[in-house]
Amino acid sequence: MKNIEEVTTQVLQKIRPSLVESEKLMRLANRLLEVVKEISRNYEGILDARLEGSVAKGTWIRGREEVDVFVQFSKEIEKEKLEKTILEIGNVVIKKFGGKTRLRYAEHPYVEGTLDSIRVNIVACYKVEPGMWLSAVDRTPYHTDYIKSKLTGTIADEIRLMKAFMLACGVYGAEIRVGGFSGYLSELLTINYGGFSNAVVAVSNWRPPVYIDIEGHYTDRKEALEAFGRPGLLVVDPVDKKRNVAAAVTDTKLSEFILASKMFFDSPSERFFYTPEHVNRYRTMTEVRRALRGRCILGLRLRVQQKPPDVLWGEIKHTLKGIRRALEHEGFRTFRYDAWSEGDLCVMLFELQELNLPAYYLHHGPPTYLANALEFVKKHSRAQDTVAGPWVSGSRLYVLKSRAKTSVKDILRIRLTKGDVRVSAGLMDAIKRVKIYKSGEEIAKLASKNINFRQFIFEFLEARPPFLARHAQ
Amino acid sequence: MKNIEEVTTQVLQKIRPSLVESEKLMRLANRLLEVVKEISRNYEGILDARLEGSVAKGTWIRGREEVDVFVQFSKEIEKEKLEKTILEIGNVVIKKFGGKTRLRYAEHPYVEGTLDSIRVNIVACYKVEPGMWLSAVDRTPYHTDYIKSKLTGTIADEIRLMKAFMLACGVYGAEIRVGGFSGYLSELLTINYGGFSNAVVAVSNWRPPVYIDIEGHYTDRKEALEAFGRPGLLVVDPVDKKRNVAAAVTDTKLSEFILASKMFFDSPSERFFYTPEHVNRYRTMTEVRRALRGRCILGLRLRVQQKPPDVLWGEIKHTLKGIRRALEHEGFRTFRYDAWSEGDLCVMLFELQELNLPAYYLHHGPPTYLANALEFVKKHSRAQDTVAGPWVSGSRLYVLKSRAKTSVKDILRIRLTKGDVRVSAGLMDAIKRVKIYKSGEEIAKLASKNINFRQFIFEFLEARPPFLARHAQ
Repeated sequence: MKNIEEVTTQVLQKIRPSLVESEKLMRLANRLLEVVKEISRNYEGILDARLEGSVAKGTWIRGREEVDVFVQFSKEIEKEKLEKTILEIGNVVIKKFGGKTRLRYAEHPYVEGTLDSIRVNIVACYKVEPGMWLSAVDRTPYHTDYIKSKLTGTIADEIRLMKAFMLACGVYGAEIRVGGFSGYLSELLTINYGGFSNAVVAVSNWRPPVYIDIEGHYTDRKEALEAFGRPGLLVVDPVDKKRNVAAAVTDTKLSEFILASKMFFDSPSERFFYTPEHVNRYRTMTEVRRALRGRCILGLRLRVQQKPPDVLWGEIKHTLKGIRRALEHEGFRTFRYDAWSEGDLCVMLFELQELNLPAYYLHHGPPTYLANALEFVKKHSRAQDTVAGPWVSGSRLYVLKSRAKTSVKDILRIRLTKGDVRVSAGLMDAIKRVKIYKSGEEIAKLASKNINFRQFIFEFLEARPPFLARHAQ
Repeated sequence: MKNIEEVTTQVLQKIRPSLVESEKLMRLANRLLEVVKEISRNYEGILDARLEGSVAKGTWIRGREEVDVFVQFSKEIEKEKLEKTILEIGNVVIKKFGGKTRLRYAEHPYVEGTLDSIRVNIVACYKVEPGMWLSAVDRTPYHTDYIKSKLTGTIADEIRLMKAFMLACGVYGAEIRVGGFSGYLSELLTINYGGFSNAVVAVSNWRPPVYIDIEGHYTDRKEALEAFGRPGLLVVDPVDKKRNVAAAVTDTKLSEFILASKMFFDSPSERFFYTPEHVNRYRTMTEVRRALRGRCILGLRLRVQQKPPDVLWGEIKHTLKGIRRALEHEGFRTFRYDAWSEGDLCVMLFELQELNLPAYYLHHGPPTYLANALEFVKKHSRAQDTVAGPWVSGSRLYVLKSRAKTSVKDILRIRLTKGDVRVSAGLMDAIKRVKIYKSGEEIAKLASKNINFRQFIFEFLEARPPFLARHAQ
């Protein structure tokens, strides 16, 4: 078995860009910035333009190059004006470089382009004093400056290791779909612990709630945690004491990160740095059918409208929970659920204990000493769907009733039709036209429709985070 | 609909013995008493002999005549001597009257005989001062005297109504099998409320805990309830302030009594006074098969040793609970259970939600922040019976496992073999040779073996107390 240093040395050789590659990327980035600045002069209220993100900090991973140019507007400029202006500038700049543009949405729309197969983002923000934030990205220039001030020695490489580790372990990315660790957060953690290895050792010993406050904005851990509502992970933003940089990290991703760190520390290996895409091959229908054997899988296939991913995934996650709740309320046991989306398709999967409920169920009545005991007896003694009873056990009445429907498809369909499932308003229409599938041939049929959901279905059935995937063992 | 008075008047005509019948019974009782007294003179340490029970009090129901003769021993006589003596006296007396004798067991053995188809019991007790009780039946003469002192007006008839009502509703009898109301308790309740109708109205409004203290032994209801451990029903014995006459009444029987009273008050009818034996006919196998349809019934057939009923039924009830616990622990849902016994046979029935567990089950692991998370992952990642996972959800690890056995018969058999079910020591041997049956044809086969368990199985499937039985509606 290799030790941690041997592993990280080898990984770094793969993920650290060469000097030539670095210079090429920096040249592109600086030329872009110059052009953005030049064009910006034609607009009123633009105060500056700067490089942000991993290029500005020199912390990117080879193969994941990305250039972020931020245009800083005066706070006098209205939101609509800012949005209109950034789209104009972005389109002109990208076209000037001969790239293709795409409109993207975060809090504000921005322009994404691809130049020499490198992703470029032209983003607008307000130039404001710390704490006077007008939009979520106004902090970014301060984050860049803060990280740059800490980049001594080989810390940039340590950050690369951290990002590659998080990526491969499936916990990287603050978008709602992932609920993981942002780039900035990965940088802060590495800086806080003085390197990747130290950070992994520390994380492997984390026991939430975890409190990190690099700049010492708070003096009392307990007070700080209370102030943020006791999150599992609190990393106070060095440039904004009121912000938890880890606010987007879900309990699951935090726990996966802890487990991945424990496993890496226990048996260091390069596999912890290779993203699943590198190793996962597409699965055949035979493999999917084999994995489905004996499983109780419920699948929903929706056609969704185009919308910003964080909006869509917020709706998807809320709807997943609503459906799970409805299923549990009907008496089903839900082991797990997950969703996948691409273009206008969305697939939701639920693994259940059973796809059909027992034909009969126990119905609890009131204690016999209550006045409504008599009503209960009268109602159920004669009811068509009473199988046995009423009888008395302890102080209560009980009756055995037969279910009108037992199949999860029928039961869910009825509840959805009645509007008796908590569904996001944004998915209401899609849910009305939902297709419901259940294992085994029905889910296999669903898997056969698209190679990407086939892959998702297979991974759902395997149910292991990337760092525990079978091929990685 | 008849009113309560019309109903009770009619019922009384049926359950009140005629003058001729009364005189005949009293003649027999007094002749018996004389002979017992005569023979007792041959033994040392016998102080007196008296009539007890419903004959002594004149509160018996027509058709349920029974003569109790109590021989009162001096407290100097040892237990063994008392037991030997009462068996001698009992046998001599019954034979002298030309009847057949049978040895019976309560706390002490006693002699039961049948004369002119009337049951006769010759029982031993110690003659002691109140509170100095040496055996459970020493209180009986005091109970008899107390009740006789209260029998003014028509109260004996009111008691007859109460007993007939309790009998027909299935709540009469303090033996462990029933867990219901003793004759003395039925008398005290009737006396306390000044008659049957008043008592039924009061009971229909009971909300446990119920506290009745006719002689005012306690001044504080709360204190009295606490002193007895907060039973559902506390009726302080007028002749012994430390005894709860209702100690043997289970919550279920108390609740059934309340419900039966509510129902009778709601729609008075003679059917509340007819015992099930009067109305229930034996069921055909076709009826049993129809009732079994879709039901999940587990049956156990045991051969038990002869022993006093209260001992056997204590063991049966304890064992029923132990088996239920084991089934629930394995993941089965138990709706109800009950048992039946006759001679050396005992049948236990359980109604379950399902007879087979799902092939796969969710196994909960530790939170990832604990040290043993790694062990869990290593163990389950490679285990043969791991179907999917391990995965992380919230802070915990989970894994989907496959069950070695899914059938309730196999699973229960394995646990019984391993000694992993809490079974009464007295039934241990019987359980080792238990036959296990499950619905539908297996239970039908069980039902076909004996007309009495067939009847029990049918009533178990119907699952209604007598006062709610279908034929009674």
